[in-house]
Amino acid sequence: MNYVQFTAETTSNGVVERDFTVGEIPGVLWSPASGPDRAPLVLMGHGGGTHKKWPAMTGRAHLLVTRCGFHVACIDAPGHGDRPRTAHDEQEIAALFEAREAGEPEGPVVVRYNAHLAERAVPEWQATLDALQELPEIGADGPVGYFGLNMGTAIGVPLAAADSRITAAVFGLHWPDALAETAKQITIPVEFDMQWDDEHIPRESALALFDAFASHEKTLHANAGRHKQTPRFEADSAVRFFARHLGCDVTSTA
Amino acid sequence: MNYVQFTAETTSNGVVERDFTVGEIPGVLWSPASGPDRAPLVLMGHGGGTHKKWPAMTGRAHLLVTRCGFHVACIDAPGHGDRPRTAHDEQEIAALFEAREAGEPEGPVVVRYNAHLAERAVPEWQATLDALQELPEIGADGPVGYFGLNMGTAIGVPLAAADSRITAAVFGLHWPDALAETAKQITIPVEFDMQWDDEHIPRESALALFDAFASHEKTLHANAGRHKQTPRFEADSAVRFFARHLGCDVTSTA
Repeated sequence: MNYVQFTAETTSNGVVERDFTVGEIPGVLWSPASGPDRAPLVLMGHGGGTHKKWPAMTGRAHLLVTRCGFHVACIDAPGHGDRPRTAHDEQEIAALFEAREAGEPEGPVVVRYNAHLAERAVPEWQATLDALQELPEIGADGPVGYFGLNMGTAIGVPLAAADSRITAAVFGLHWPDALAETAKQITIPVEFDMQWDDEHIPRESALALFDAFASHEKTLHANAGRHKQTPRFEADSAVRFFARHLGCDVTSTA
Repeated sequence: MNYVQFTAETTSNGVVERDFTVGEIPGVLWSPASGPDRAPLVLMGHGGGTHKKWPAMTGRAHLLVTRCGFHVACIDAPGHGDRPRTAHDEQEIAALFEAREAGEPEGPVVVRYNAHLAERAVPEWQATLDALQELPEIGADGPVGYFGLNMGTAIGVPLAAADSRITAAVFGLHWPDALAETAKQITIPVEFDMQWDDEHIPRESALALFDAFASHEKTLHANAGRHKQTPRFEADSAVRFFARHLGCDVTSTA
């Protein structure tokens, strides 16, 4: 197996940020600058067209680290961030831009391309998790959460279905087409975000994906507003969700 | 106008609980045992068949007082708690029990009876709010929230539509039939709770009522489970909602 190779380290506001690679996969691990020897791990999947250090990623990571003392890891998805694009990636990205230019729905392209990326990304995440769990501050026995919207959900749903180490997940902002059947295999607690006035994802589609999860505990958060207008307080809510399920008393540390 | 007459006072866990009457209406006011001279007020509407000191009411009141320093008031709805039932009340309650015994849907009776109770309750709430705002620790200028599920929503929606002093509300667990038209007049921030597997309220009905609110900021929280299984963490979420909108930094006081 591949091990975590750290390549850079910075510290700000009580959070240590370490760039790493696992084989060819570049990632980043955020950890408390001081804390207990071991803490739960949250994996974060970034959205389509962004990367592991996109502001939403670093912002959520800082919330999770400073409020709960968790470790948080994000890797670049295939064809994203520091990773090369294949000819197929280029072709699908061109198709997406064409649909946008033409004012056509981008759903069909996004659903198809994200499903393809998920096939490549799931084994990468599993190899990364194997390697991260070798680190003494994470370990193989601790709880693991997953937090990813948009493309992060397209990758996270099959990952959570395939890997029982993930025990709680925040998903959202995706179509059910390639995911609903897989979501039916998922029984861990889920918090699911959708936008009530999403111009890309029909309301019924978002509700159908939420409905598909077999989880005994699942919560839908639907906010008024368009696709990119998920309120900031949903990140706070996700922190409290992981606090409940991975073990951290938010109110005592915030 | 009628004034608040206090009839009893107890203190526990930093919360002062004062029974009061405004005219014929019995109520209870929870306040911080120590705190600033003035604080926002949250009105709480109880559910059908319960009363102003039902455990869910006292529990939510203590959360709101201890975490945010708010004042919290609840009054008995017509025909509930310490209040007499009219012949019409007895008739509708009998109809509800008959429907339950017969295994018929209770929605039609509840919708009709709650709409009737709301007509009686809205002016009572407005008289109570008039009187509460005469108290120096509340005042006429402070923000006012409303928090009520089930029958508390049947009363709270027309109340919030009629009274612009209410600036944020948590509603939920009701049918749209008598309420959706009124909800269209409401533009204040709303958090709305529903149960995804509610055996009484069809999923589409709950979604339709949420959809009806004209609020720019509205959030739906749908949890897996049956009618009476709303998770406890939704009370915490309501506290944070009022903290955001009435003015209190929960994280610094919790």
